[in-house]
Amino acid sequence: MSAHRKRIKLEDILALERFTRANLINSFTGFKSANLVGTVNEAGETNLALFSSAVHLGANPPFVGLIQRPVSVPRHTYNNILDTGYFTLNHVHKDWIKAAHQTSAKFEETESEFETCGFTPEYSNLHPAPYVKESLVRAGLEFIEAVPIRVNKTILIVGRIIEIEVPEEILSKDGFLDLEAAGTATISGLDSYHETQQLGRFQYARPGEEVEEIL
Amino acid sequence: MSAHRKRIKLEDILALERFTRANLINSFTGFKSANLVGTVNEAGETNLALFSSAVHLGANPPFVGLIQRPVSVPRHTYNNILDTGYFTLNHVHKDWIKAAHQTSAKFEETESEFETCGFTPEYSNLHPAPYVKESLVRAGLEFIEAVPIRVNKTILIVGRIIEIEVPEEILSKDGFLDLEAAGTATISGLDSYHETQQLGRFQYARPGEEVEEIL
Repeated sequence: MSAHRKRIKLEDILALERFTRANLINSFTGFKSANLVGTVNEAGETNLALFSSAVHLGANPPFVGLIQRPVSVPRHTYNNILDTGYFTLNHVHKDWIKAAHQTSAKFEETESEFETCGFTPEYSNLHPAPYVKESLVRAGLEFIEAVPIRVNKTILIVGRIIEIEVPEEILSKDGFLDLEAAGTATISGLDSYHETQQLGRFQYARPGEEVEEIL
Repeated sequence: MSAHRKRIKLEDILALERFTRANLINSFTGFKSANLVGTVNEAGETNLALFSSAVHLGANPPFVGLIQRPVSVPRHTYNNILDTGYFTLNHVHKDWIKAAHQTSAKFEETESEFETCGFTPEYSNLHPAPYVKESLVRAGLEFIEAVPIRVNKTILIVGRIIEIEVPEEILSKDGFLDLEAAGTATISGLDSYHETQQLGRFQYARPGEEVEEIL
């Protein structure tokens, strides 16, 4: 890879064709998490939507954020979260990325992405939001607050984890989850799916000390 | 991988030893972006810090968010962003993940992670924040707002991209960046680094149509 870089200034970015700009900016931030968000409305109709914006907000207590695009058009996931107070996060497995991607199509509210895209809803006794049976790593979350991001009318949805379900084989003694062993996919841009290969884990870094690998 | 999952409820999560809980919850969200954030203070002292929380907020205009932990202790990166109004994002390359991880040690403000961890600052004529010369994919951002997340005193730092620099070879005609070709790493948990292998790109999904691969 050459060290020569092309420079794209803000004015050039703003002048790009809409989908080219969306691909470029969505690619820029780096690799992203791949989660199906499961919700239900008050009529009991389930919804499933792909989000690549799940972000860690804190561990004690456990909070996760999701970026919601402006609600200028109906947003089934967001409405369901506000109406029922709960949602699930379900890791996308590398073997069914195509079906997961299909959930991003604009279906009618009465049409469930579970059925249309071939996923099976599964329920917990702790909350009403549907899990994806096919997903190995998943959590149920209670809606806490919707934080408005004024500059572009996006919203940070804040949820508190009320339960996590993971295969025992991927849970290390120190709490680390081996997501690679679980087959969790990662996304780049709007539409590119990747599997991973671990390079290494490193111990907590301290000034003046060489970083040691965790073996 | 067995479909039998271990269920960890909120009360169990809260009862975990602190570092075990941090590993578990930081692992849960999925694979994350790996960026070095470059800043400078008003005295001209540079700072470099690893963030795995960069999140796409919008493409038009291009906004990126970063999650800042509570500022109960000095946060050099955050203070520098507030003081100077600019920061850079520099993708972590898989060949120097150990040096990137070392920037997460708690250095004194007068000690620059550039020098200590072996990175070279490089400057733009558009803003004062230092880039990482060794990073192939990078951007300069203007600070827009600090959105408080009340529930746990974290902060969403919102930046507007003012320039992106990428090797020409990774920029597709449709705007997609081939981050895998650029060697960009991804992070899971607090300390695990991974490279990726692309499984495929899929076209924009539409109801009732089979998802087609982009070749």
